[in-house]
Amino acid sequence: MEPLLRSFIEDRRERVERTLEDLLPGAEDLAPSPLGGALRYAVLGSGKRLRPILVLAGCEAVGGDAGPALAPAAAVECIHAYSLVHDDLPALDNDDLRRGQPTTHKAFNEATAVLVGDALQTLAFQAIADAGQLDVPTRLEMTRRLAHAAGHAGMVGGQALDLAQEDRAIGMEALQRIHRLKTGALLRTSVELGALAGTADGETVDALGAYGRHIGLAFQITDDVLDVEGDTAALGKTAGADAEHRKATYPALLGLEESKRLARTEIERALEWLTPFGEAAEPLRALARYIIDRDH
Amino acid sequence: MEPLLRSFIEDRRERVERTLEDLLPGAEDLAPSPLGGALRYAVLGSGKRLRPILVLAGCEAVGGDAGPALAPAAAVECIHAYSLVHDDLPALDNDDLRRGQPTTHKAFNEATAVLVGDALQTLAFQAIADAGQLDVPTRLEMTRRLAHAAGHAGMVGGQALDLAQEDRAIGMEALQRIHRLKTGALLRTSVELGALAGTADGETVDALGAYGRHIGLAFQITDDVLDVEGDTAALGKTAGADAEHRKATYPALLGLEESKRLARTEIERALEWLTPFGEAAEPLRALARYIIDRDH
Repeated sequence: MEPLLRSFIEDRRERVERTLEDLLPGAEDLAPSPLGGALRYAVLGSGKRLRPILVLAGCEAVGGDAGPALAPAAAVECIHAYSLVHDDLPALDNDDLRRGQPTTHKAFNEATAVLVGDALQTLAFQAIADAGQLDVPTRLEMTRRLAHAAGHAGMVGGQALDLAQEDRAIGMEALQRIHRLKTGALLRTSVELGALAGTADGETVDALGAYGRHIGLAFQITDDVLDVEGDTAALGKTAGADAEHRKATYPALLGLEESKRLARTEIERALEWLTPFGEAAEPLRALARYIIDRDH
Repeated sequence: MEPLLRSFIEDRRERVERTLEDLLPGAEDLAPSPLGGALRYAVLGSGKRLRPILVLAGCEAVGGDAGPALAPAAAVECIHAYSLVHDDLPALDNDDLRRGQPTTHKAFNEATAVLVGDALQTLAFQAIADAGQLDVPTRLEMTRRLAHAAGHAGMVGGQALDLAQEDRAIGMEALQRIHRLKTGALLRTSVELGALAGTADGETVDALGAYGRHIGLAFQITDDVLDVEGDTAALGKTAGADAEHRKATYPALLGLEESKRLARTEIERALEWLTPFGEAAEPLRALARYIIDRDH
């Protein structure tokens, strides 16, 4: 990781972490139920925090302060964390390991994991609705974009399509549709929410959204590549799971080298959208390069 | 059911139904995944629609038009429907029958049911955020209230506490806490959202919220009574499930007669809060009486 990016990420991760700490209920708040502790387990202490850092970097690219961007940053992480908890359930991907530790349903139980995911989704919308540092129209616009990105026409729809395509031969178009919805929509929206927190105008939000669309695709291609080339320890989740579930992936459709080339092309396109932003977009540039160079 | 209430409910149910029809994706929108059809299955065609009708009746009690209240009405029904789909899952209550038909995980599969619940929750927030008939501050305030009522400090928290108390001896205070969160918060918020849609001031919203709090408790007591006295055909879900799960209930703690008396007292208190609203609150009055007189 580039040194500039490393210090940017370390600082911003710290701020995101504190925001999430404050947002989540206490471990004992819902005793005798395990919900409070399970919510904290599912969210705190690990995870790349890529989406919230994209929110903060998007905000800074348009000259905004990080402060007002922290609530939407926490919100997108709550949406992401909820999707991981539910995707890991036995009825879906049936994964035992996530972010290097037992998945929530393994550490607690399935019922708790269902409720943790449900409560985290609600918490995302609550975080934005309660964000006193943002004006009311901005909060509503963020809510609107987040809902569209997270729901049936976004992340959840993509997950449903992904499950439907297991064991089936699908082409590149269907694969891109899945990923545009499943991971792309939330990544793109993260950058857009950052621009909104920085009070950017519509054209600027759209430009950063285009950057987000391209890195989203590169991110997913790289995820597929890492599932083939990476190892379980670095990934913090089980490597080779895609092949085991006989999922269509970019390497399966295009081969490894062509997949990597496509990811690089997407990153170049993403960077083109950043030209008008000059120096302020350096964190977004570094994040784009990191997305294809990471090992987990 | 009183004739006035019957025609009120029939008319308003119809309008809620059409709103939900329009809000939900088409059955084929997410093909080849079953998500679109499963979302429609889980929501449309049955259900008392008590919560959306409370939104509409709350709006009319403050002199508002029904039109702007339809989006929040659909939203609370989406939250309610999502909670039913997830609560019915094998890992939670493991119910096969809901609203007189197979539960979503029985009609489709568990993975689809998890995603249906997730997407319905998102759709609730989307419906309010997109509600062009409501001004922006009202939409945000509705989002805020709905999130607080639905999440870890509301419905989901109550569900977690309810699961934690199975097979345990708990007292009246713990039982009331569970129900205040699990069912009370959303019922109360439904009436409040109606008042907000009718552009009521804060004091008026609070008065209708107090009505909602009392009918919420009466509703839950009656649910517990029906689980003992009702039959599976009328309920559309399995009668006797509480005893089977050894759940603490009002009849178990207080006996049947004392439970019914307590429910009537709560309804009287609810009605007191409606005095200032005169004729406009007739539908809310009829709904309060219906809540303890229903057979399902």
